Amino acid sequence: MTREATPEDVDAAVAAAKTAFGKHPFQESDRPVRAALLNALAEQLAEARHDLVPIASRETHLGQDRLYGELLRTVRQLEMCAELAREGYWLDPVIDTPIDLPPPYGRPDIRRVNEALGPVAVFAASNFPFAFSVLGNDTVSAFATGCPVVLKAHPGHPETSAAVDTIAQAVLPAGALTVLYGTGYDANLRLVQAPDIQAAGFTGSLAGGRALQGAINERTVPIPFFGELGAVNPVLVLPAAARSRGETLGGLLAGGATVGMGQFCTNPGIIFRPADAVAFDAAFLAGVTEAPRHQLLNDRIAAGFETGATELAGLAGVSVLRDGADSAHHIFEISAGDFVRSARAREEVFGPATLLVSYEGEEDLIAAAATLEGSLTASLHCDPADDALADLIEPMLRRVAGRILYAGVSPGVALSDTMVHGGPYPSSTRPETSSVGALSLTRWTRPVAYQSCPARRLPTALDDANTLALMRRMNGQMTRGSVADATVCPTDIATRVKTWR
Amino acid sequence: MTREATPEDVDAAVAAAKTAFGKHPFQESDRPVRAALLNALAEQLAEARHDLVPIASRETHLGQDRLYGELLRTVRQLEMCAELAREGYWLDPVIDTPIDLPPPYGRPDIRRVNEALGPVAVFAASNFPFAFSVLGNDTVSAFATGCPVVLKAHPGHPETSAAVDTIAQAVLPAGALTVLYGTGYDANLRLVQAPDIQAAGFTGSLAGGRALQGAINERTVPIPFFGELGAVNPVLVLPAAARSRGETLGGLLAGGATVGMGQFCTNPGIIFRPADAVAFDAAFLAGVTEAPRHQLLNDRIAAGFETGATELAGLAGVSVLRDGADSAHHIFEISAGDFVRSARAREEVFGPATLLVSYEGEEDLIAAAATLEGSLTASLHCDPADDALADLIEPMLRRVAGRILYAGVSPGVALSDTMVHGGPYPSSTRPETSSVGALSLTRWTRPVAYQSCPARRLPTALDDANTLALMRRMNGQMTRGSVADATVCPTDIATRVKTWR
Repeated sequence: MTREATPEDVDAAVAAAKTAFGKHPFQESDRPVRAALLNALAEQLAEARHDLVPIASRETHLGQDRLYGELLRTVRQLEMCAELAREGYWLDPVIDTPIDLPPPYGRPDIRRVNEALGPVAVFAASNFPFAFSVLGNDTVSAFATGCPVVLKAHPGHPETSAAVDTIAQAVLPAGALTVLYGTGYDANLRLVQAPDIQAAGFTGSLAGGRALQGAINERTVPIPFFGELGAVNPVLVLPAAARSRGETLGGLLAGGATVGMGQFCTNPGIIFRPADAVAFDAAFLAGVTEAPRHQLLNDRIAAGFETGATELAGLAGVSVLRDGADSAHHIFEISAGDFVRSARAREEVFGPATLLVSYEGEEDLIAAAATLEGSLTASLHCDPADDALADLIEPMLRRVAGRILYAGVSPGVALSDTMVHGGPYPSSTRPETSSVGALSLTRWTRPVAYQSCPARRLPTALDDANTLALMRRMNGQMTRGSVADATVCPTDIATRVKTWR
Repeated sequence: MTREATPEDVDAAVAAAKTAFGKHPFQESDRPVRAALLNALAEQLAEARHDLVPIASRETHLGQDRLYGELLRTVRQLEMCAELAREGYWLDPVIDTPIDLPPPYGRPDIRRVNEALGPVAVFAASNFPFAFSVLGNDTVSAFATGCPVVLKAHPGHPETSAAVDTIAQAVLPAGALTVLYGTGYDANLRLVQAPDIQAAGFTGSLAGGRALQGAINERTVPIPFFGELGAVNPVLVLPAAARSRGETLGGLLAGGATVGMGQFCTNPGIIFRPADAVAFDAAFLAGVTEAPRHQLLNDRIAAGFETGATELAGLAGVSVLRDGADSAHHIFEISAGDFVRSARAREEVFGPATLLVSYEGEEDLIAAAATLEGSLTASLHCDPADDALADLIEPMLRRVAGRILYAGVSPGVALSDTMVHGGPYPSSTRPETSSVGALSLTRWTRPVAYQSCPARRLPTALDDANTLALMRRMNGQMTRGSVADATVCPTDIATRVKTWR
């Protein structure tokens, strides 16, 4: 069942998705049907938890506690996508009623709404065998909006993928989700180059993402590529915060850095703190030393970590505070000056490692922060006494991160409307989107405008009566009203009409 | 003043934009200031109309009537962007208040808002010397959201560009808009590869757009490229409509096809009508024959049109109903069967030409419609008696077009919230956006999430009190209320919390 996908398998999967698209339950009016299917999937996944977790634990070494938690999150993601499908979150319906004035002031009746793109490709991640895999958020957000999915399972957990696939196929209609398996790259490239595939979602390495983007760039008709390619998730502890609550912050960040052996997209990989932050350092090192040790996800990731950690240890100015011998987690230290001089120090080392950057004064920290690159998150721990410095640092973080934390730790992604799991490249290839939360649904859609459309032919979301009771923008105002209640002030506009010839 | 831009000119322009970004008037709180500047630009452009129109007429041959109209549209675009800046249309502020439950049900305080990307590059179009040029919609939509612009003037109208540039510089602060000139491509490539440029907008040819996209693909950090690269804007006249109002439709479409010598992005290049649509054809041919003749925009476009028209005339099954000798507008005819067999027939011929496609029956039309490619618009003229056929055709058009018209003609873009001026490739490289209307502003922004942010550090758009009186999504509901009034039902969620171990 989990045999290597052949070119024919890829083509058949794409054809099945194409056949399914636009028909029940992928039509606009089928939103409640898709919501019900998503809830059914959530129930079935929860039912099967005691079967699924041991398989995933064997394949990923992540441990049952973490995996039960991740499976619950995956269930909740399904429920959330069901809620957003019922609401029609991505629709963004807008109506402009006609204005009978000469151009450019007048206009016909125009209405627009976001519609599903069509069949999409999704590539599962290694580090979340449930939450970013077969029924992970990319799959279920695409299905919620009406896009059939062809998913390439991650070769790191094929049995987990197959078990979830079996559950999915028992619930979903034909062509809604086809799962392909295998370790080769050829099927991946063929999938993103298939003419009928309209978008692709990916969570993985920079090299893997670049390969897929390259294949997409070769298409005659390019498609959006929603890739999440890695992040160092910098943490900046400002001087007053380090003084007033260094011990607390050190313990908190030790917990965040060591969860799951550091194998989180949002792992805080680089921590800036004052060179004399003795209390912070003591608490961080103690917390890290206590962290439990388990195997990394797979041999490839273990080898990549070894290489990365060895390279980091060898950089000019880097000292090793903890290595694999004396704790599960590796800790490296570098001065802010050396950090600025080393591009390599700013790159992600995926796995159980943290780079502590020591800064002497404000200018030292500002210079180092200015070198940061795109990241999913950035954390700014500051007290009111730090505000003048924070005023200088914060705009830098806003330009490099999708999410800025002022408390807590970055691993742990809330399933909320507000979540941005994305950010400037390389953390995302599409920083205007998010791969978690409500914004993740809008990715799979695009706007279509209907001009002078007869009532009998309008999409229901744009009808006069507002049958679906949607919140719609009408003539510039948000309302749940009908078009009959629309107000437009052509006289206001008429007074501004320029008759200048 | 309009000398060829050197590499140093490009670098200096980008540096000026970078210096300006994030400072007054590009800060979030400066929206009213930018709105006022946009209105001032609108006034100054209108004031200068009798100077500007003759220059543009001399450079583009478009005629003063059309150019006065286009300048008025450009003024209105500025006013509309000012209104949207005052409103903060692109902000999309969303607030989730905390829920004190275990993950994945709980969450901290998270708020998100869209923020300006930074310095952007804009490439002016040849065919709209005002509306898609120095103060065209790409420029003013980017400025409205807080992005400084480096603009490459189109070499087809340098004096018009310089005159508008002079007006702009008198109003705008330093670095807000730098205009580069010249005919070479090197400056264009250097501009989109400049590390500090965060996005690029372009309206022009497929070849030109592909060259810029290729240069962007070579960047270490890719940026969004909003390219509008051409469209055939198919028009489908269904049988009952052809019978009941063929003469009216023929005259209407003749007017649409011949305006501005067909040099519109939304020019209806391909018209499908029944093979026996005698009344339609008579009216269309008569209308086209009366169309006034003037020179094309420039020699390059004239040469490209000659080549394209000659190629089209030589395709298997194509007959020439009108050529340059007997009318300004060229009309070609092909059967639906031959159209399906010829990929070349589906390509845009930019200029005064229409391809009439004759279909014999419903299946003939459906087969031809299935071959259509991405386009800015598609027009469906159908009577109620055509509805069964329209039900089959319309989903095809929704998959290839950004805007579907059921009446009127596609040239003529309403300046409205609802307008989608974009569509599947090649009509746009980013079909999820629009280069006209309210959606054009959102292009230049991306979301940033603020987690557990102290009140003193929140962007004003996300503050508790809703000082800006914005419509915000709060805990899933649209409201102008304050955070103190937010309702959240953790007990609803708590009843669903799964405690399954």
